[in-house]
Amino acid sequence: MSYARLLLDVKPDSSPVDLGLRAAAIDALNDCTQACIADTDADLGEHNVAEMVTCIRLCLDCADVCTAAAAVMSRPSGYDPGVARPLLESCVAICTSCGDECERHARMHEHCRICAEACRRAEQASRDLLNAISDQG
Amino acid sequence: MSYARLLLDVKPDSSPVDLGLRAAAIDALNDCTQACIADTDADLGEHNVAEMVTCIRLCLDCADVCTAAAAVMSRPSGYDPGVARPLLESCVAICTSCGDECERHARMHEHCRICAEACRRAEQASRDLLNAISDQG
Amino acid sequence: MSYARLLLDVKPDSSPVDLGLRAAAIDALNDCTQACIADTDADLGEHNVAEMVTCIRLCLDCADVCTAAAAVMSRPSGYDPGVARPLLESCVAICTSCGDECERHARMHEHCRICAEACRRAEQASRDLLNAISDQG
Amino acid sequence: MSYARLLLDVKPDSSPVDLGLRAAAIDALNDCTQACIADTDADLGEHNVAEMVTCIRLCLDCADVCTAAAAVMSRPSGYDPGVARPLLESCVAICTSCGDECERHARMHEHCRICAEACRRAEQASRDLLNAISDQG
Repeated sequence: MSYARLLLDVKPDSSPVDLGLRAAAIDALNDCTQACIADTDADLGEHNVAEMVTCIRLCLDCADVCTAAAAVMSRPSGYDPGVARPLLESCVAICTSCGDECERHARMHEHCRICAEACRRAEQASRDLLNAISDQG
Repeated sequence: MSYARLLLDVKPDSSPVDLGLRAAAIDALNDCTQACIADTDADLGEHNVAEMVTCIRLCLDCADVCTAAAAVMSRPSGYDPGVARPLLESCVAICTSCGDECERHARMHEHCRICAEACRRAEQASRDLLNAISDQG
Repeated sequence: MSYARLLLDVKPDSSPVDLGLRAAAIDALNDCTQACIADTDADLGEHNVAEMVTCIRLCLDCADVCTAAAAVMSRPSGYDPGVARPLLESCVAICTSCGDECERHARMHEHCRICAEACRRAEQASRDLLNAISDQG
Repeated sequence: MSYARLLLDVKPDSSPVDLGLRAAAIDALNDCTQACIADTDADLGEHNVAEMVTCIRLCLDCADVCTAAAAVMSRPSGYDPGVARPLLESCVAICTSCGDECERHARMHEHCRICAEACRRAEQASRDLLNAISDQG
């Protein structure tokens, strides 16, 4: 079990949002950050680095946004919908863009295929959490 | 002149958004991050720390969101409106909440008064940049 | 398998340091960051928050240092011993201090017990990687 | 006056290290982070991006280490010499490497000249603070 889940389990807070969805989102966002940091470095090591520039920029943005979202989602105050909703929307947008770009390079670069997968999972987990938060009104 | 401005000036990119607005937003977001990190620590040193818990949590969220937004706004790809708009909206929301909470403690704690000011500036600069990005369509 | 490991596996670089040790350190540092962020928030929710101030400050420092170290260790350039060695030494130091402080609260607060465990693992993994880097000369 | 300085001034803590040196280091580290983030993006926009790969990697490392050091130095607990000393040593090392590499490109790329300057200042300010901390014993 992840530390995100272990720690959410022992400190019940007032948020009505499902613990499992929250832990899954935090884990997927942290995984995506790590994948994007490593993929940036792998892109920089490729012979065709000039063709990887868009992928690198999107990975850097994606890592920054996912880092912020994972931290905010780890605090109950993050579930203020006025903050959480647009933050998760920006996650969904950057994970989608970054995942699409990584996928374009997936056949040639296995590291991009793996990073695309991490982006898709973070995108889906952010969307699931966004829906759950929106359902709370 | 700030490094944000100096570096935007020498690397013209394709973004149609005004350089001055962009540099001002990056600087205000970075200032707000620093103010929130320092205010968190100052709050933790107060005798009435139990009354400062909301302020601390909001400062931590605010620092995380402002850090991400400043980094993304420092890259042209950040001006993809699908990412930039909700990210700046989450900045406006957390800077408003954090500024309001800091202001509640401003009379008793000078550090909260200063942090509230940094939050207000980051809120305004984020709003200005958001408007400029939205005007581009 | 973690994304850190998956991505190190597919992009062999020139570093002579064992891949398994590197991936284990990156994973342990990222886990520790997440545990410290969540433990900070849990501490802030406790009735005896005034007694948790040292724990909160150490958790904040620990999260910041582990975040930087995980990112640097995800890039081959991070294995420049002049940078990697002191950075990992600061990780070992803060993970030790933070783990010790969390352990002091472990009986009363389960979240501190879990965080102490994450700190111990990150401390050990940083030490292992530090030794491996130092052996390279 | 910077927010780092304003906030250090109003929350005197028990650290014997000179406030001016501390604020100067925090400001220089934050400036360096911003310069490195912007220089990374500028490098990625250059026609000779393949020759900028080392510069980009060092800028990414430098931004990560400076971010952590500025945050830790903003908390009194950061002045635990066991943590602060190696962390500042890793700052000095990465700012030196990154500054040297940026300087190699300074004639061709004005953004690298500016970033080299930010790295030199952060290196010097980290060294000054390191000496002050070491003098405390």
